[in-house]
Amino acid sequence: MEYIIGIDGGGTKTQVVMVDMRGNTVINFTVGPSNANVISNQELHEIFKAIFQRIKDRAPVEFERVICVYAGIAGAGSAEIKQQITGILSSLVPKNSKVYLEIDALNALYSGTLGDPGIVHISGTGSVAYGINKKQNKDRVGGWGHLLGDEGSGYSIGRQGVSAALKFQDGRGDQTILLDMLYEHFRVDNARSLIDHIYFAQDMKRTIASLSEIVFCAYKRNDRVASRIVENAAIEIVHHIVTLYRKLFTDREEVKVVLCGGIFNDVDGVLPIVHRNLEKDDYFRVLTPSLLPVYGSIVGGFTQLDVKVTSDMIKRMQEASTN
Amino acid sequence: MEYIIGIDGGGTKTQVVMVDMRGNTVINFTVGPSNANVISNQELHEIFKAIFQRIKDRAPVEFERVICVYAGIAGAGSAEIKQQITGILSSLVPKNSKVYLEIDALNALYSGTLGDPGIVHISGTGSVAYGINKKQNKDRVGGWGHLLGDEGSGYSIGRQGVSAALKFQDGRGDQTILLDMLYEHFRVDNARSLIDHIYFAQDMKRTIASLSEIVFCAYKRNDRVASRIVENAAIEIVHHIVTLYRKLFTDREEVKVVLCGGIFNDVDGVLPIVHRNLEKDDYFRVLTPSLLPVYGSIVGGFTQLDVKVTSDMIKRMQEASTN
Repeated sequence: MEYIIGIDGGGTKTQVVMVDMRGNTVINFTVGPSNANVISNQELHEIFKAIFQRIKDRAPVEFERVICVYAGIAGAGSAEIKQQITGILSSLVPKNSKVYLEIDALNALYSGTLGDPGIVHISGTGSVAYGINKKQNKDRVGGWGHLLGDEGSGYSIGRQGVSAALKFQDGRGDQTILLDMLYEHFRVDNARSLIDHIYFAQDMKRTIASLSEIVFCAYKRNDRVASRIVENAAIEIVHHIVTLYRKLFTDREEVKVVLCGGIFNDVDGVLPIVHRNLEKDDYFRVLTPSLLPVYGSIVGGFTQLDVKVTSDMIKRMQEASTN
Repeated sequence: MEYIIGIDGGGTKTQVVMVDMRGNTVINFTVGPSNANVISNQELHEIFKAIFQRIKDRAPVEFERVICVYAGIAGAGSAEIKQQITGILSSLVPKNSKVYLEIDALNALYSGTLGDPGIVHISGTGSVAYGINKKQNKDRVGGWGHLLGDEGSGYSIGRQGVSAALKFQDGRGDQTILLDMLYEHFRVDNARSLIDHIYFAQDMKRTIASLSEIVFCAYKRNDRVASRIVENAAIEIVHHIVTLYRKLFTDREEVKVVLCGGIFNDVDGVLPIVHRNLEKDDYFRVLTPSLLPVYGSIVGGFTQLDVKVTSDMIKRMQEASTN
């Protein structure tokens, strides 16, 4: 039997799995972050070295039979960075193994399309749309970071929620329950203290993004200001996807759209609005991921090896995903 | 002859003047920042101690005849901070001198109203509206910092300019010359490098705020996207002012509105739009400051001492302002 290693490297953690050619998981573990935008090549080398050493220690025989390593790494978008990291990986894998390196958005896509072309919109703290067509052309829309872009992201929704609450407090904005909800959340009773909790937070970006949950809560309580924010976020996300569709696909070509990331976990929030807006056009097939992103890397590996991913294999990977 | 000391303390510098009762400037210098939000009480004590020592060294006789110290200090808004800083100042000034401490927005107001009640809107890197009525009631609108508020500020205008340029680059936004102008400004040829210049800037907030100048430039070249940003900024500023008017003044009560800060220095940018919008209501009298903010502190001091500020005195302070 031969084996494939899949890696999903993000800003908070790196997931690693090794599966056999029938989709059975042999090894499965998580280590620290490996975002290439933030971590130096030297550090990345150390992280990958430790990952492969750990696999070798636990399954030395299987490791020698690895024929493919497929890594989706955050921040590995540019050709230069891609070449550097591919070099690092190639120096660490068994001789007969092929190495494929892609941006982590691609394995997120495959975790939903199961190897087919399509578009993924990832919305967590940040947001980006990424796609690949039949000819393997890839492109993206958005993803310019929390200060300058990331429309439809948790950060953007949370920031707008606080901003609207402060405008109401000022007497400048429409009435909203967001102000009281934010006061309660931070256990404060005035805007100055609220602000201080945010500006002096240890991880301000994440703190603001986490406040998107309060906006969703207010939205479900029919708060008009929160509804406007949630609906606008959905419109921005749809706009990303439609723009990318025009760049990569021909008119009315059917395409799978995967919605991925924390914002879509709330099934009564942004998700149904995006769904509804996209499915008005009958060529969009909207999906949520059926596998963990790290198994999206395994799917990517199989696809590169021209191995057909059967429903049995998917089932095995799904079972391992939920264990 | 007796003397007044005026202080204008901000986030980048602190200006100090000493004038006689006829408005003649005796001493005039600038030292480092004294924003109470950022600097500890211990450090503030050191800064003020050095300021008064410097005056004493240069004009020992006059210093003993100081009857009023009026300081406008950024971040001195809360009662607690006000009490602490007043304590520091009182321990350093001559025995017979009164001490008045206010937020720096108030002396900015007086630098335009020359002691009258009114509203000031300050828009530089950040933005805030501050006002005082005949009964000496004070209030503010906005000023919640660059991430959560500061609508109509340089930061907000610059950020929207970059964001619109990136949306155009993505194929998501309207055509705009901002993209090429930003590329030229940073000497780059792609969005990724543009982004890197901003996110890795030493002072990101100021870097983004400074890009408002590019937006004003595009606005003058009739770029529609830039026009929308500039017009929205003006509307936000007017909204701050009108909201504050409703909080502090009675219906149709005439009030002086002072427009202050870097954004209004560009007389073909936001200024005329705000002017036009406000003067539709005949009870707004729109002004730009006729004195440096530090002389606004002197005006505040005279007002507190019930000394009438004559046009001769203003003229002398204006002459000193431009020297």
